[in-house]
Amino acid sequence: SQQILLGEYLLARLEQLDVSSMFGVPGDFNLGFLDIVEENPNIEWIGNCNELNAAYAADGYARVKHNSLGVVLTTFGVGELSAMNGIAGAFSEMVPVLHIVGVPSTQQQKSKPMLHHTLGDGRYDAYERAAEQFTVAQAELRDAKTAPAEIDRILTECIKNARPVYLTLPTDLVYKKVSAERLKTPIPRLPSPNDPDVEKAVIDEIVKLVDSVNNDVVIIIDACAIRHDARDEVNELITKTGYPVYSAPMGKSTVNEQYERYGGIYVGSISHPEIKEKVESAKLILSVGSLKTDFNTGNFTYSIPTASTIELHSSHTNIQYATYPDIGMKELIPKLAARLQANKASALALEVPAFTFPVPMEDNEIISHTWLWPRVGQFFKEKDVIVAETGTSSFGILDVPLPDKSTFVSQILWGSIGWTVGSTLGAALAARDLNLGRTILFIGDGSLQLTVQELSTMMCRGVKPIIFVLNNKGYTIERYLHGWERKYNDIWNWNWTALLSTLGDAEGKLTQSYTVNNKTELDALLNDPTFAAADKMQLVEVMMEKHDAPRALKAQAELSGKTNRYVGTS
Amino acid sequence: SQQILLGEYLLARLEQLDVSSMFGVPGDFNLGFLDIVEENPNIEWIGNCNELNAAYAADGYARVKHNSLGVVLTTFGVGELSAMNGIAGAFSEMVPVLHIVGVPSTQQQKSKPMLHHTLGDGRYDAYERAAEQFTVAQAELRDAKTAPAEIDRILTECIKNARPVYLTLPTDLVYKKVSAERLKTPIPRLPSPNDPDVEKAVIDEIVKLVDSVNNDVVIIIDACAIRHDARDEVNELITKTGYPVYSAPMGKSTVNEQYERYGGIYVGSISHPEIKEKVESAKLILSVGSLKTDFNTGNFTYSIPTASTIELHSSHTNIQYATYPDIGMKELIPKLAARLQANKASALALEVPAFTFPVPMEDNEIISHTWLWPRVGQFFKEKDVIVAETGTSSFGILDVPLPDKSTFVSQILWGSIGWTVGSTLGAALAARDLNLGRTILFIGDGSLQLTVQELSTMMCRGVKPIIFVLNNKGYTIERYLHGWERKYNDIWNWNWTALLSTLGDAEGKLTQSYTVNNKTELDALLNDPTFAAADKMQLVEVMMEKHDAPRALKAQAELSGKTNRYVGTS
Ligand SMILES: Cc1ncc(C[n+]2csc(CCOP(=O)(O)OP(=O)(O)O)c2C)c(N)n1
Ligand SMILES: Cc1ncc(C[n+]2csc(CCOP(=O)(O)OP(=O)(O)O)c2C)c(N)n1
Ligand SMILES: [Mg+2]
Ligand SMILES: [Mg+2]
Repeated sequence: SQQILLGEYLLARLEQLDVSSMFGVPGDFNLGFLDIVEENPNIEWIGNCNELNAAYAADGYARVKHNSLGVVLTTFGVGELSAMNGIAGAFSEMVPVLHIVGVPSTQQQKSKPMLHHTLGDGRYDAYERAAEQFTVAQAELRDAKTAPAEIDRILTECIKNARPVYLTLPTDLVYKKVSAERLKTPIPRLPSPNDPDVEKAVIDEIVKLVDSVNNDVVIIIDACAIRHDARDEVNELITKTGYPVYSAPMGKSTVNEQYERYGGIYVGSISHPEIKEKVESAKLILSVGSLKTDFNTGNFTYSIPTASTIELHSSHTNIQYATYPDIGMKELIPKLAARLQANKASALALEVPAFTFPVPMEDNEIISHTWLWPRVGQFFKEKDVIVAETGTSSFGILDVPLPDKSTFVSQILWGSIGWTVGSTLGAALAARDLNLGRTILFIGDGSLQLTVQELSTMMCRGVKPIIFVLNNKGYTIERYLHGWERKYNDIWNWNWTALLSTLGDAEGKLTQSYTVNNKTELDALLNDPTFAAADKMQLVEVMMEKHDAPRALKAQAELSGKTNRYVGTS
Repeated sequence: SQQILLGEYLLARLEQLDVSSMFGVPGDFNLGFLDIVEENPNIEWIGNCNELNAAYAADGYARVKHNSLGVVLTTFGVGELSAMNGIAGAFSEMVPVLHIVGVPSTQQQKSKPMLHHTLGDGRYDAYERAAEQFTVAQAELRDAKTAPAEIDRILTECIKNARPVYLTLPTDLVYKKVSAERLKTPIPRLPSPNDPDVEKAVIDEIVKLVDSVNNDVVIIIDACAIRHDARDEVNELITKTGYPVYSAPMGKSTVNEQYERYGGIYVGSISHPEIKEKVESAKLILSVGSLKTDFNTGNFTYSIPTASTIELHSSHTNIQYATYPDIGMKELIPKLAARLQANKASALALEVPAFTFPVPMEDNEIISHTWLWPRVGQFFKEKDVIVAETGTSSFGILDVPLPDKSTFVSQILWGSIGWTVGSTLGAALAARDLNLGRTILFIGDGSLQLTVQELSTMMCRGVKPIIFVLNNKGYTIERYLHGWERKYNDIWNWNWTALLSTLGDAEGKLTQSYTVNNKTELDALLNDPTFAAADKMQLVEVMMEKHDAPRALKAQAELSGKTNRYVGTS
């Protein structure tokens, strides 16, 4: 059979999986592999400023590019450990990311010399041991013969679990010849098929339950629906059945938020009262891909009894108190939709509150959160990719109905600030591949300080996101949780509008920056067609009040304060 | 006995250990503790831009502030994992750093809710498992009663091993009352005492060996001498005995490089030929604190037989082929110095090459490495703290004789680029405590991109380092190892002289930036007394050639190329 280099084999697999960008930072243990990457015509090397940002970018890329995965390449020790928080975030939030680490040669792995980037005590396995905590599969390549199968194994796990995997690539193996034979069999993209008999029993059971409550059903869409690539199936379900549908924060944008049967965001007791009432009074909840984290459930305040719940998951189904292992939603949903279709007329009779967010009239010029979010909502267009950083942004955006075909990107469980900067780079590159619209980021001043350098990679790669920086003099979300006037929640103010020019647009040809101090200025900018066209990378500094926050954050802080209190402190 | 809050107990211990700065980033699991820190009059909270930089700062602080330790505070998951590479670096390079992590309450640790910053699968111990790989002791506090003893245990280990330790601080325990009793007994700073009989036998053995070679002895000082705080002892040894003394790269500045018996840097086959000849022809090598890593030994090219070597270590001694466990150098050296003092006259007859580095005459204006390093050598003053980033800088500085009482800071084993930025912040704060001189950083353009934001914390805290940014259009050190003309070794050029103003000195009052394009300009700047006074934070962009490198890097690359070759690549 045909022989190719092991490095080429790996790239061929990634090409098959539609990977067009590889993120990372060079280091002397991955330079040989990088030669092969640089020469590959289909995969572009995106050299990042640092490894954490690279991991974030791979994560953002994978989120937008359904059906593919994110890839990050780092070097032994120093590089891979820098990326660790990014990989752990992909684990937590269920994003398929391949972490390739260039490591010393197989010979050196045995003799264990005190090379640079080692711990100095001969432990060559310490980084792998750490990586095991945050990846669902690992392959430490030691032998060219078994390497292709090992690569295939971890890629399969990556896609199946929608979680990161770890691959070490020793310097000497990259250039070893291997058989190309396995490339003829593609990596499976679909989950293992459901057992038809069990699946049928499950559907019967669900239909029986639906009938028993006279079709009084509400659907809630959550994280795993989008992470396990069941977006199309979910949309089929909701349009065929006509049930009222809501989304958890982590499921936002899985279904078209303009759809007339869509009622908005359900997040336990911090939901809008009307939504809360409608969801919690339904007799049966059909929950798709639910992930019950604190910020995704209004601090665990779902008031929905298990007896009234059907949960569809990627690899199992729960009906009331029963669990059906290995019955996954991707295959189940279309069949269920077909069966429930018959009830559509009566489903359509169930009322859904309109999900709208009108811009309020306020008699001052301050850019308040109550005004900002509905106002930017009007600015969004179909196919936009909208990224919101943990902080006032991730809470503020929840109430904004997004346009059809838009993609919402946020990290509501992991919540690592600074993540959106790398993530926006990856998302924008994926959006370019998929011919989506603009990439629009909302980020706090505090968060941007963590990962700011990655703005430079955006310029370098010619992506043109619009970046709204909320300048509220520090960590406002933290102030709501603790330390209202504490100095530790202040930050050093930057000259935000000089950032893009400093980070590599000295001539001002690639980018444009703006400060908006009041409603009139922001309004004018959002109405400016040149701005909206996003033909350059743009940064908007939005001046806001230190102690202002969106409704949902205030409600969440109220709840967290009760469970997470520091005894004896203010 | 007196009762205090657990958070106060921890701070009291740190005060006893002379900690004046605590680095880190707030997060909702550490905010309660931060209230106590903010109110402490002796320990200043240094809020960093991100956690990796904070860990780097703690490391730099500990290196300069002998006899103390570095402290970094992060939050559960997202924060602590971001710091991991910094902690691993402190492990590798033997720097005492305490990593405190604010974690969920003891109650939550038991019930394991799906809180933000968790992995979503209920594993609350994953971060601790990872941390175990990179710290010498861990304390996961669960109980206020045992907490003080636990804190004392890990602080003791931190100092004894000069390596990082890990402490989790649950939100609820911070405000629990504990007994202050243990505070009366200080944490031991000295290593355990040597057994007097064994120690005497060791000294006798060494003296016998010295006599047997007719006092033909050379001393080599290395990393562990400074890391295990034996700087004074080493200086006593060399001045009392008068033997020729050399330093390994990682031992640089442990002894006064202006001392007339000091011959410069020994680094195996990449040493200056005269040094190599002198060291390798000595009949006996007295090696103090040696750490035989690749870059510290010219890729393992020491040509010194074990039969001619005595090695003093922090916790054992080797004489030729024999090991004496538990005989540590800190106590041994003064006694050995007293015994060998008698040989001083004959030791002084041993020749030492002068360690000088004259500025060469070059008939062009290009700022070459051969010219740059000796020229900046003339600029250094007593008590300066000199930091060199991995890259052309860390190799270039080796040949420069540093002034008396200066401190050299570099990461020759771990070699994580970007590290010096955080480290310079920590070093400058420590230097302020100790009344040292200027802090001067040499860093490549590529490295500065990884961690650039921390320049802002320097401004915010009013430290005034001088930062030389070597602009050579990318990763020159990598080009020497592999990929001479590859695109992956290029970087996006920044507007370096606009950085400080952008990162928070909009009015230009706190900082000053310069570009120097040629020898004349750099010369003039270095001769300018206002510049040399360092009354503001200063950044100098030094324009250099993409393919130029210092002598030692060329030699190292030549050696690495032989062992680390990629088969089949250019
Ligand atoms: C890596 C990381 N470090 C620390 C935190 C804790 N944290 C959560 S939000 C936040 C402040 C965010 O401030 P900013 O971005 O300015 O948002 P806003 O002021 O709009 O709330 C911090 C420090 C975190 N979530 N992740
Ligand atoms: C965290 C980390 N990532 C990657 C590397 C690999 N690496 C070592 S040196 C270097 C390039 C440094 O370039 P620069 O700072 O510009 O130095 P110079 O051009 O002066 O050599 C890189 C990428 C590393 N050592 N550490
Ligand atoms: Mg803010
Ligand atoms: Mg460079």
